[in-house]
Amino acid sequence: MTEYEKARDGEVSSALRKVAIDEKMDPEKLRGLVAAGRVVLVGMTRPHSRVIGIGEGMRTKVNANIGTSPDHDSLNIELKKLKVAIEAGADAVMDLSTGGDINTIRRKILDKSNVPVGTVPIYQAVVEVTRSGGKVEDCPVDKFFQVVEDQARDGVDFMTIHCGLVKRLADEVARSRTAGVVSRGGCFLLQWIARNNEENPYYQHYDRLLDIAHEYDVALSLGDGLRPGAIADSTDRPQIGELLVIGELVDRARRRGISVFVEGPGHVPIHEIPVNMQIQKKVCRGAPFYVLGPLVTDIAPGYDHITAAIGGAVAAWHGADFLCYVTPAEHLRLPTVDDVREGVIGTRIAAHAGDIAKGITGAADWDRTLSAARARLEWRTVLDSSIDPQLAHRMYDRSPGEPDELCSMCGEFCAIRGSRRSVKD
Amino acid sequence: MTEYEKARDGEVSSALRKVAIDEKMDPEKLRGLVAAGRVVLVGMTRPHSRVIGIGEGMRTKVNANIGTSPDHDSLNIELKKLKVAIEAGADAVMDLSTGGDINTIRRKILDKSNVPVGTVPIYQAVVEVTRSGGKVEDCPVDKFFQVVEDQARDGVDFMTIHCGLVKRLADEVARSRTAGVVSRGGCFLLQWIARNNEENPYYQHYDRLLDIAHEYDVALSLGDGLRPGAIADSTDRPQIGELLVIGELVDRARRRGISVFVEGPGHVPIHEIPVNMQIQKKVCRGAPFYVLGPLVTDIAPGYDHITAAIGGAVAAWHGADFLCYVTPAEHLRLPTVDDVREGVIGTRIAAHAGDIAKGITGAADWDRTLSAARARLEWRTVLDSSIDPQLAHRMYDRSPGEPDELCSMCGEFCAIRGSRRSVKD
Repeated sequence: MTEYEKARDGEVSSALRKVAIDEKMDPEKLRGLVAAGRVVLVGMTRPHSRVIGIGEGMRTKVNANIGTSPDHDSLNIELKKLKVAIEAGADAVMDLSTGGDINTIRRKILDKSNVPVGTVPIYQAVVEVTRSGGKVEDCPVDKFFQVVEDQARDGVDFMTIHCGLVKRLADEVARSRTAGVVSRGGCFLLQWIARNNEENPYYQHYDRLLDIAHEYDVALSLGDGLRPGAIADSTDRPQIGELLVIGELVDRARRRGISVFVEGPGHVPIHEIPVNMQIQKKVCRGAPFYVLGPLVTDIAPGYDHITAAIGGAVAAWHGADFLCYVTPAEHLRLPTVDDVREGVIGTRIAAHAGDIAKGITGAADWDRTLSAARARLEWRTVLDSSIDPQLAHRMYDRSPGEPDELCSMCGEFCAIRGSRRSVKD
Repeated sequence: MTEYEKARDGEVSSALRKVAIDEKMDPEKLRGLVAAGRVVLVGMTRPHSRVIGIGEGMRTKVNANIGTSPDHDSLNIELKKLKVAIEAGADAVMDLSTGGDINTIRRKILDKSNVPVGTVPIYQAVVEVTRSGGKVEDCPVDKFFQVVEDQARDGVDFMTIHCGLVKRLADEVARSRTAGVVSRGGCFLLQWIARNNEENPYYQHYDRLLDIAHEYDVALSLGDGLRPGAIADSTDRPQIGELLVIGELVDRARRRGISVFVEGPGHVPIHEIPVNMQIQKKVCRGAPFYVLGPLVTDIAPGYDHITAAIGGAVAAWHGADFLCYVTPAEHLRLPTVDDVREGVIGTRIAAHAGDIAKGITGAADWDRTLSAARARLEWRTVLDSSIDPQLAHRMYDRSPGEPDELCSMCGEFCAIRGSRRSVKD
C-alpha cells in the first residue's frame, strides 16, 4: 500500500505521526488531509531521509535544485551543493543532472541526502539518446518509462513528469509567446511531439506511469512544461490549458492511490499571483502546489533570488505549499555553491513570510523570540536565532566604546536603547 | 509661491512639465494630481538636481539612506555611497548623518547630489545638544525649528519630521510593544516628551514648521515615529493612532500650500500590507506614501534587503509611492558602499514589480524588451538591459564549445534554443 492509500484506509503510519509532530498538528487531522490528497508525504523510501509533509496547513517547504550540466559535470561540486543546501535549511533537493555519469551522481546524492530527493527522469532519457547520436525525437516511448522505473528503484522520492503538455497545447504555444517554452522537460516533449506528430507519451500512457509510481510509492509532481518564461506570457491560455489537463491527471493519480502534487509558474507579475494560486487549488481539487518562483519581473538576472523571493512569499501567502528555490545564477549560469546557499536562504525567507501570513502554527514565534531579544539588546540571541547565524555574526559591527551592546548603525543614538531607558524612567 | 500652490493656481511649471515627460503623463493631468496633493514634486531647490514626482500614477521611487554614524564618520565614504546609490538608480537620497561635521557633510552631499536630498533635522539638534554635554530632553524648543530652517536654507528638498507622535501616544506605546520605538527621531521625541512632560514641539508648534516649509518650498515627509519594529507590533493602536494625527496634519499642510507626504512602516507581516496601504491613502486623503520596507519578517538580519524587497513590492502594488531602501546591513551595522548598492538594486526590483502591478505606463516594456532578446538568444541585449548590467555580464557563464550563445546552466539542452528550433521546423 502507498502512504496515500494507508491514510485513506484510516491508518496513522509512523511516517505520518512524525510529520504530525514536526508540524504541531493532530495526527488524525493530518491523516484526513493526506487522505483527501491535500497533503502529500514525501521521503519514506530511504530510511536515512526525513519525511516531510507538503500541503495544506503544513509549513511551506523549500526545494533546492542541484545537479550537473553538460558544461559543469563534477560530482564533488554537486555533493558540496547538496551539503550546503541542507545546512542552509532546504527541505528537499532535486537532482537535475544532465552532465557526467548521471546514474552515479543520482545514487551518490540519494546516498548522502537526508532530505527527500526529486528528479526529472526525462532529462536522463534525452541525454542518453543524444549521447548515442540520436535526437530528442528518437527517444523510444519505452525509454521514457524505463528511466522512471530505474530512478524509482534507486529510491527517488518524487519525480517531475510533464504529463499535461498534450499535443494540442504544444501546437498552440510555440507561436503565441514572447519567450516560448522555457521548461527543459517541456521543451524536450514539445520537440518530441512536434517532430513525431504523436501525443505526449507520458499523457498517452499515463497508466504505465501510475503503475510504476504505485509500485515504488513515488510521489508524482505533475510538471508545468508550459510555465511562462516571461511575465508577458503569464496566465495565458496554454499555461491554464495545461493546468486543466493536470487537474484531470490529479484525479486519475488519486484513484490509483498515488501521492500527487502540481507544479506551477514561473514568471508572473505580482498582481496575478493570487489568481494563479486560487485556480490551481480549485481545478486540482486541493492538490499541493509547487511553484518555481514565481519571478515577478524579468529584468533582474543576477538578482533572481530576490525577484523569486518576492513572488514566492506572495504565492505562499495565497496557498503555495512548496517553493522551488531560484538562485542569483538563474538565467546566467549553473549555480555555484555560494549561489545555492543564497537561493535556499532567500527562498526560506519567502516561505517563512508566507507561513506568517497563512497562520501556520508557531511560525511567528520565531520572529517574536528574535525581536524580544533585540528589544533587550541581547545580541547573542538575536544573531544566533537569525536565519543565517554565521552571516549575522560576521556582519554585526559592535559600536566601539559603548558599554551597552549597540551596533554601528546608530551607535549611542540607538533608538532601542533610548526607548528602553525611556520606559524605565 | 510653492510648487503646490502653483499647481493649485492652474500653472504648469517647468518642473512639472519635466516630470510629466519623464512619467509619460499629460501635464494637465499631472497638474491636477499635484493640485490635489496626490503627487508631490521634489527637487526644485537646487538647479543641478533632477525633479521627481512622488505619488499616484508615478513610477514608484526609491530612496537610499546614507550618512555617518558616531562610529563611522568619514565624509569620503558617505560621498562614495552617494555616488554608488545614484549610479545604482536611487531616485533620492537621505543624509541621516549623526557623526562628524554634520553641516559640512550635508552641504557636500547637497552639492554632489543630482537627485533630491532629504534629511531628518532632529538628528542634528539632538547630536549638537548631546555634544555640548546635554541630554535629549535639554534640547530647547527653538532648536528643533532652527535646525529645520538651517537645513532648508542649505537647499534640502524634503525633511522627515515626526509631528504625529503626540504625547498621549508616547505615553501608551512604550509599555505595549515587543520592540518599543525603533525610529531614531521617534525615540528622541519620546524621551523629550516623557522627561519634560510636554507635548511634541513639532506638533505643538506645527505652524512654525509650516512657515519654514513654505518659505523654502521644502516638502514635508510626516515621519512615523511609532512605526512597528517587530511584526508582533504591526498595525497596532499606537501606529494607527499616529497615522490619524498625521492625517490631520496633512490637511493643515495643504491648507498652508505645502507639499506633504506620509511615512509608513516598518515591520509588517505580508498579509497586513494591503490594509496598511489602504488606510493611509484613506485617512491622509491620497497623500503619497513613503514606506521603510516594509519588512515582512524579523528573522533575517543580513538579508533584510530581501525581506524589504518582498514587503516593498507588495506595498507598491497596493499603493505605496516611495520606497526607502533597506540594505543587508540593516539591524547589524552602518551600511558599507556595497551594502548601499545591494539595497538600491533590491528596492528598485520591488518598485518595478509594483509598477507592473499598478499598471504604470511603460513599466512592463522593460521586461518585454529583455525577454524578447532572451527568446532570440541575444545575450548582449539581455545583459545590457538588465537592472545591473555589470553584475549580469560578470556572472554570465557562456557554454563552451557551443556555436549558439548558450549559458552553462543547461548548455546544449537549452530550452529556449530547443523551443525556437521546434518552431522553425
